[in-house]
Amino acid sequence: MTQTRFDKLNASLRTSDLDAVILNPGPTLKYLSGLSFHLMERPVVLFAAKDQTPALVLPELELQKVASLPYALQVFAYGENPSGWGEVFRKAVQALGLDGKRIGVEPRALRLLEFQYVKASAPEAEFPDASDVLAGLRLRKDAAEVEAMRRAVQIAQSALEAVIPQIKIGMTEKELAAELVMQLLRHGSEPEMPFSPIVSAGPNSANPHASPSDRKLQAGDLLVVDWGAAYDGYISDLTRTFAVGEVDAEYQKIHKIVQEASAAGRAAAKPGVPCADVDKAAREVIERAGYGKYFTHRTGHGIGMEGHEDPYMRGDNMQILEPGMAFTVEPGIYLPGRNGVRIEDNVVITATGADVLSDMPREIRVVG
Amino acid sequence: MTQTRFDKLNASLRTSDLDAVILNPGPTLKYLSGLSFHLMERPVVLFAAKDQTPALVLPELELQKVASLPYALQVFAYGENPSGWGEVFRKAVQALGLDGKRIGVEPRALRLLEFQYVKASAPEAEFPDASDVLAGLRLRKDAAEVEAMRRAVQIAQSALEAVIPQIKIGMTEKELAAELVMQLLRHGSEPEMPFSPIVSAGPNSANPHASPSDRKLQAGDLLVVDWGAAYDGYISDLTRTFAVGEVDAEYQKIHKIVQEASAAGRAAAKPGVPCADVDKAAREVIERAGYGKYFTHRTGHGIGMEGHEDPYMRGDNMQILEPGMAFTVEPGIYLPGRNGVRIEDNVVITATGADVLSDMPREIRVVG
Repeated sequence: MTQTRFDKLNASLRTSDLDAVILNPGPTLKYLSGLSFHLMERPVVLFAAKDQTPALVLPELELQKVASLPYALQVFAYGENPSGWGEVFRKAVQALGLDGKRIGVEPRALRLLEFQYVKASAPEAEFPDASDVLAGLRLRKDAAEVEAMRRAVQIAQSALEAVIPQIKIGMTEKELAAELVMQLLRHGSEPEMPFSPIVSAGPNSANPHASPSDRKLQAGDLLVVDWGAAYDGYISDLTRTFAVGEVDAEYQKIHKIVQEASAAGRAAAKPGVPCADVDKAAREVIERAGYGKYFTHRTGHGIGMEGHEDPYMRGDNMQILEPGMAFTVEPGIYLPGRNGVRIEDNVVITATGADVLSDMPREIRVVG
Repeated sequence: MTQTRFDKLNASLRTSDLDAVILNPGPTLKYLSGLSFHLMERPVVLFAAKDQTPALVLPELELQKVASLPYALQVFAYGENPSGWGEVFRKAVQALGLDGKRIGVEPRALRLLEFQYVKASAPEAEFPDASDVLAGLRLRKDAAEVEAMRRAVQIAQSALEAVIPQIKIGMTEKELAAELVMQLLRHGSEPEMPFSPIVSAGPNSANPHASPSDRKLQAGDLLVVDWGAAYDGYISDLTRTFAVGEVDAEYQKIHKIVQEASAAGRAAAKPGVPCADVDKAAREVIERAGYGKYFTHRTGHGIGMEGHEDPYMRGDNMQILEPGMAFTVEPGIYLPGRNGVRIEDNVVITATGADVLSDMPREIRVVG
C-alpha cells in the first residue's frame, strides 16, 4: 500500500537468493501496491527487483489507476493490439536489467500468459519458486489487519443471523445462498466477496466443496453453511451446521463430536507450537470417536487477504505458530451419500494464546 | 457437459497439430465437463488427449463432484500432503502416454502451478498455445446458450431498473454497487456473478476500469454503471451512463455521440464482415465528432461463459463474424480528470444480421 511494504519486500529479497520477483494481480500485488486489476485477456505484471524502483506492465486503459500513487513506480503501458505487448515487456525487463537473473515467481498465482512474456524477454533468467518469500510478507498480521478481519467476521455473523429466521423447508440451497449474499452486502461486506457461500443440505452436505444446488431443504437434513465477508481487503471464512427439523440421532452425535474437535483445535492454537499440533488436536477427537476416516481434509488454512494462504494446519506441517498468524480451525465429518458436518472459526495467534475472532454459537440449531 | 462436447473437442484435435490439451478449472473446463472448482492452492487439471478418455487430476476431497458423471472420465486424486502430488500427475501423464507429445495450453487461464507439474511429468513434451482451438469450441453459441445469455441480460436490466429510483445524491458508489448486487440476486442472477459492477461517477467515470469508491454522487456528475448477471453459466455485460441532476452541456453532447456510435456499431454487426468493421463503424462516429483520442479502448469483446472471450471487436481484427458469435458493443468517451460515458450492449450474430439482446433505453436519464 505504501513505500513501507515495498521496503519490507526489498529486505526479504536482500536475505534471499532472489534478484527480483514478478507478480500477477492478486492479493500479494494488492498488499504491496494497493492496486487491483480484473485479470482477463490482457497481461498485467508487477516487477520488484532488489534495490530498484518497482515496475508495472499494464494496458494503457488502466493508466489512471497508477496516476497518483504514494510511492515511486516505473510504468510500462501497452495499447490494444497484442502484437505490441512483447516489446513493452522487453522494455520493462531491460530497464530493471533482469535477463540472466533469478526472478522469483508465485506458481499458484502466476499465469502462463505473463510468465511467457517475461521469459521471452529474459531468456537467460531462472524462475525459482518465491512462494515462501512472498507468503512471508503477509504471514504475520499487524493490528490494523486483525481489526479488518474481526470486522469481516462480525459482518458475516450478523448477516447469517439475519438469514436464519428466513430458512424454511422447501427453500432451495441456491435461494438460501442468494439471501445470504444479500444480507452480507446489507451488513457491510464489500461487493467483491472472498468466495460464494457454500449452502449444502442432506447428501450434498457430505461434499465439503459442494456448490449450492436447486435441491430443496427437507426435514431431517443437516445444513452446512460455509460463508464469509470482505472488509477493507480482508476476509472471513466461517462454517456452521444446522439441523433442518428433527435429524437422525447419529447426525446429532457427529455434530457434537465436531464441536468438541473444534474446541480442541482452538485450544491447541498458541505461539511456539507447530501447525501440526492444531490438526492433531482436532483430529484425535474425531478419531477417538471412530469417525477418523470421515474427516477427509486438513484442519485449517491461513486467512487474511485470501481465503487460503499460509499457514496450513496439516498433520505434517512443522511450521511454528507465531503471534499475528491467522487461520481457520474447521474440523468436519462427512458420511458419503448421507450427511455432513463442519464447524469453522477464524483465529489469530497472540503473544500468549489465540484470539478467536468468531463467536457465533457452535451448538446445533434447529431451523426450517 | 456431455460426451458430445468432448467429441467436439476430439474432432478439433484431429484436425489440429495437437495431441492433447490441458485445462485449468474455468469456463473451457466447465463447458466440456460441466465441472466447477474454486481454484486455490491445490492443483486441478483436465487432460483431453486425442481419441482417449479424458483424465482429471484433483484433490481427494473433490471426488464427490466426479462420482456420477454422464461421460467417461479417468480420475487421478491426491491427498492433503503436497509431497505426493507430483506422483499423481506422473500417473495421469503416463496413462495418456503424453510425454514427448504436443500438449496444448491456454496461457491466459493456465497457472504456472499446474503447468510445472505436467511439465515435470512430461519433460520431452511441447506445450504450444491452444487458445484458438479451445476458443473455437465456444465461439458459435447454440440456441440454448443464446437463451441463457438473453435471460442473463433480462435479469441484469430488471435489476438496474429496480435500483434507479433509489439513486440519490450523497449516496456513495460502493453503496450503489451493493444495492445493485442485491437486486441482481433478487432478480435471479446466480450468486457467482461474472464480475463486480463498476459504479463510477464524476472524475471516476473517466476511468473505464474504475472500482466503486467511497466518493458520494454529486449533482453534475455523469454516472457510469457497468454490470451483468449470470444465468445457467452464461453472463451478460452491459453499461449505461446517467446524469446526476443537471450536467454540463459538453457531457450531454458526448453522451449523444456515444449513443450514435453504439447504434453504428450494432448496425455494422452481421455475418460475413470482419470484427474490425464493428470497431470502425463505432469509432468513426466518435472521431468525426472530434473525440477520437478519448475513446481509448476497442469497441467490444466476445461474451458467453466469460466476460471477455473471442471474438474481439478491434480495428485490426480481420476475423469474420459468423452466426452464433456473441459480443459486446461498448463505445465510450473518457475526458481525463473530468467525466466519461460508455454504453454497452450484448449482441449475437444471426443468419442475416444481429440479435441485440439488451433493450434498456440508451438515452441519458437523469437520476438523484
